[in-house]
Amino acid sequence: MSSERLIYLPLGGAGEIGMNCYVYGYGAPDQERLILVDMGVTFPDMDGSPGVDLIMPDIRWLEERKNRLEAIFITHAHEDHVGAVGHLYEKLGAPIYARAFTANIARGKLAEYGLSDRAVTTTAAWPETVKKGPFSVGFLPISHSIPESSALVIDTPEGRVVHTGDFKLDPTPIVGEAFDSDLWASVAAPGVRALVCDSTNVFTPVAGRSEASIADEITNLVSEAKQMVVATTFASNVARVKTLAEAGQRAGRSVCLMGRAMRRMIQAAVETGVLTDFPKTISPEDAASLPRQNVMLLVTGSQGERRAASAQLANGKYNGLTLKDGDLFLFSSKTIPGNERGVIRIVNQFSEMGVDVVDDTQGRYHVSGHANRPDLVTMHKLMKPQIVIPMHGEHRHLREHAKLAESNGFQSVVAPNGVMLSLSAKGPKVEGYVETGRTYLDGRILIGALDGIVRDRIRMALNGHVMVTVIIDEDGEPLGEPWCEVRGLSETGRSNAPLVDALEEDLDQFMGRAKPATLRDDDKLEMELRRLVRKTTLDEIGKKPEVTVVISRLA
Amino acid sequence: MSSERLIYLPLGGAGEIGMNCYVYGYGAPDQERLILVDMGVTFPDMDGSPGVDLIMPDIRWLEERKNRLEAIFITHAHEDHVGAVGHLYEKLGAPIYARAFTANIARGKLAEYGLSDRAVTTTAAWPETVKKGPFSVGFLPISHSIPESSALVIDTPEGRVVHTGDFKLDPTPIVGEAFDSDLWASVAAPGVRALVCDSTNVFTPVAGRSEASIADEITNLVSEAKQMVVATTFASNVARVKTLAEAGQRAGRSVCLMGRAMRRMIQAAVETGVLTDFPKTISPEDAASLPRQNVMLLVTGSQGERRAASAQLANGKYNGLTLKDGDLFLFSSKTIPGNERGVIRIVNQFSEMGVDVVDDTQGRYHVSGHANRPDLVTMHKLMKPQIVIPMHGEHRHLREHAKLAESNGFQSVVAPNGVMLSLSAKGPKVEGYVETGRTYLDGRILIGALDGIVRDRIRMALNGHVMVTVIIDEDGEPLGEPWCEVRGLSETGRSNAPLVDALEEDLDQFMGRAKPATLRDDDKLEMELRRLVRKTTLDEIGKKPEVTVVISRLA
Repeated sequence: MSSERLIYLPLGGAGEIGMNCYVYGYGAPDQERLILVDMGVTFPDMDGSPGVDLIMPDIRWLEERKNRLEAIFITHAHEDHVGAVGHLYEKLGAPIYARAFTANIARGKLAEYGLSDRAVTTTAAWPETVKKGPFSVGFLPISHSIPESSALVIDTPEGRVVHTGDFKLDPTPIVGEAFDSDLWASVAAPGVRALVCDSTNVFTPVAGRSEASIADEITNLVSEAKQMVVATTFASNVARVKTLAEAGQRAGRSVCLMGRAMRRMIQAAVETGVLTDFPKTISPEDAASLPRQNVMLLVTGSQGERRAASAQLANGKYNGLTLKDGDLFLFSSKTIPGNERGVIRIVNQFSEMGVDVVDDTQGRYHVSGHANRPDLVTMHKLMKPQIVIPMHGEHRHLREHAKLAESNGFQSVVAPNGVMLSLSAKGPKVEGYVETGRTYLDGRILIGALDGIVRDRIRMALNGHVMVTVIIDEDGEPLGEPWCEVRGLSETGRSNAPLVDALEEDLDQFMGRAKPATLRDDDKLEMELRRLVRKTTLDEIGKKPEVTVVISRLA
Repeated sequence: MSSERLIYLPLGGAGEIGMNCYVYGYGAPDQERLILVDMGVTFPDMDGSPGVDLIMPDIRWLEERKNRLEAIFITHAHEDHVGAVGHLYEKLGAPIYARAFTANIARGKLAEYGLSDRAVTTTAAWPETVKKGPFSVGFLPISHSIPESSALVIDTPEGRVVHTGDFKLDPTPIVGEAFDSDLWASVAAPGVRALVCDSTNVFTPVAGRSEASIADEITNLVSEAKQMVVATTFASNVARVKTLAEAGQRAGRSVCLMGRAMRRMIQAAVETGVLTDFPKTISPEDAASLPRQNVMLLVTGSQGERRAASAQLANGKYNGLTLKDGDLFLFSSKTIPGNERGVIRIVNQFSEMGVDVVDDTQGRYHVSGHANRPDLVTMHKLMKPQIVIPMHGEHRHLREHAKLAESNGFQSVVAPNGVMLSLSAKGPKVEGYVETGRTYLDGRILIGALDGIVRDRIRMALNGHVMVTVIIDEDGEPLGEPWCEVRGLSETGRSNAPLVDALEEDLDQFMGRAKPATLRDDDKLEMELRRLVRKTTLDEIGKKPEVTVVISRLA
């Protein structure tokens, strides 16, 4: 027994907000039986991952040990916890467990890849448990900004681990279970070895507010509106969508859901019984035919996403509907850092139309789904773990959370992605480092973040691209003149002649002077031509382009 | 006289924060004599302008009328007001007027282009004026986050216009002139036709705070620090740099300025006499040799700029200095929307080093340089103009500012870039629309934002790039096989063969089957080859790449 150990290894989510993916193991070193908690994605951006469709954790470590993987547990149905299930499931093949709403969403993701929905087993809440190898795992309900979010109670021969998932302490969450302090205390009673705990809001100094606290403000806002009302929030925030819809209903407005994700989430919530009394909705066609003051649209795109309903309305028209002077657009959401530009763009577009935009600045129409700093302290004190392990956060969040736990007398440690900890009674200990990273979904192919593919795209975007073609004949002599094609560079340079002409002239001179040894050697010739193109382009326009050289040899 | 008019035409800054550029004119329609206020830049980003070095207004309208341009006035030395002077001066050629500190900075920018510093005339403050054509223009001191910021009092035969420039109402600005309410009231006394007014902070509901209000908090923070202290702010905020340096000095620390812009601004302030008692500074070499608790670094890079001192320290080392566990890094600045990712990146890098980061979240270590909503009301009421014209802001700011002015009984109008207004006693009237836009500095060349050059770069970044070379011999027959080169795309596709092989096979088959008429027609052949490449790439990897086809014909 003494040679066995309980390990924790984050592959994603510990070093970023998003892309959650955590491994637990129990057994003799390097023979541990494993479970995986969450398979999330994060989203690409033009700065670091242009053209990429989705970002997910690099799970090669786990793939190489999949014979030891007992099961996969999904805490809740946010994309950063369930989004990679469809893309990565076949690499692991272990059974997936989730509660009904989450399972519904996970099955939809598997279906997109033609995978069987039997890969997912719907699991009841704690005290029911799933026994897998040395683990017994239960889904402990907790409030969050999506239905049926759950912590995991992971019992092992080394003791109990509570993995909170994302959470807040909400006594009145509108949809789904309220935070049940007594239930959580009963889980803590036998003793908790480690509390692995959400860190995203550790810098927010005030206690979190309940989902129910904003319903009146939203209702007042909608009832005072004179023309059409449009509201956006995260589609998965079913409670918020309900609050918004009910505010519309109370104001005598017909409610219309717009955007695929919005309809998908409400459908899943109804199908799984977590949502029972949602107001009747109308189609966009019907909405277009009603007087504007009788309509409320609930739309996707709270983050300014270019293809979502909100951005399309900002561009002019969506599903036959157009916003006008005097309409109201409500962001019942916060802007995730990094998305500001997209959101500001559509706000200005609405401003040009005369649409009044109301956002979260004053905190009246949105509350966070995550535990703030005082709520984290409450959770630590309630669970009294031997160890607090901060998870789900950037490094700054993890570090601050660890400091907070330590200031209240708990052992804690910052374990970013790739750090394998053992969780012994004596405390957390770093057992090793695993190579982790990011996998990109690019079109339909999974590529590595460090493969150089995206780096090449970024370089073309920054530097432009010059392509050179030269032909060498059977005698090893240049045939005709070199050709240049240019993309993403100024057409004319300093000499006021076309850049292409300046390049071709210099290349032609070079080829005429080149020694036979150079002309025979592809690598050398390519290097020389590239150098010449970069020099001439730098002289002409002040940029050093990417260069592709094609040498065609006639045989 | 009745046929003459006073016009206002923003070419930049009215529809964005940044890139300020405003034309005033007086005379008969289309014969107005003109002056230009400010020649600013804004900064590129990867989303919209990858690889671009700087963004400035498209001034073609003014260039075509430069024989009517009397003079250029620069309100203050922030990049978004003076940054385009070096790049655009030669297109206009009119004399530039500015106060001493601003003139110092403007001359430096002209010198970078080898232009004479005599283009800039140093001008004393109001009541001195510059008389140019029908205009008499005075520099009216106003507080802002840079020395010698000035409003312009523009007297015309149609009356007085006050162009505020960027401003705040600060009675104790540390460096430079305090806001002098009596002086401003005296300027207003004869009557103001139009107040053209900064809008950037119209959404901030509380009155602005003085620069002096944060000195004590900063001093306390620095004096309590145990190891090295590093602080960043905008280099041009000379008052803040002074406050920070004095806090270091009081805590017994030697102060070191790091980053070119930081040294340049302090030098300009000393040279022009606006800064007289700045603490003695030491070199980075000396800083490296002192005990860390005796050092305070003041560094550039408050916006997370990749090449600035802060980012380099976050990457490991700068000028021989390295940060360590227990050091303190202070952002005495706010993050400009859009720059969050860069700032968060360095905060996390510091977190990994164990450096404690303090930022502006609680408002204790930074105050804004712009007038907040109540300050704008104060300004409107002080100046009692016939018309309030909101300038410097995105559309949402301009619109909100116009509403605010109207709610207090002023005539107002939203005039974004390109809208020409006449400012008659009866009120503002739209006289026409001028085509405006953005000019990019790309390497050393000025290109148009809509030239397609940057669009091509963005497309390569999103889609990757395939280059195809085919050779057609003297008889119009394909010679050898087509070549493909691929950049920024997955090397292997769905068929598990290299993408290049799949492409070359399909291209070869196509060339073998192609009709002579197709092979003779460059445009048709190129179109067919491009279509084929896109189809095969979509099949193989799910992406539609950019394609460049090179057809070499042997003559």
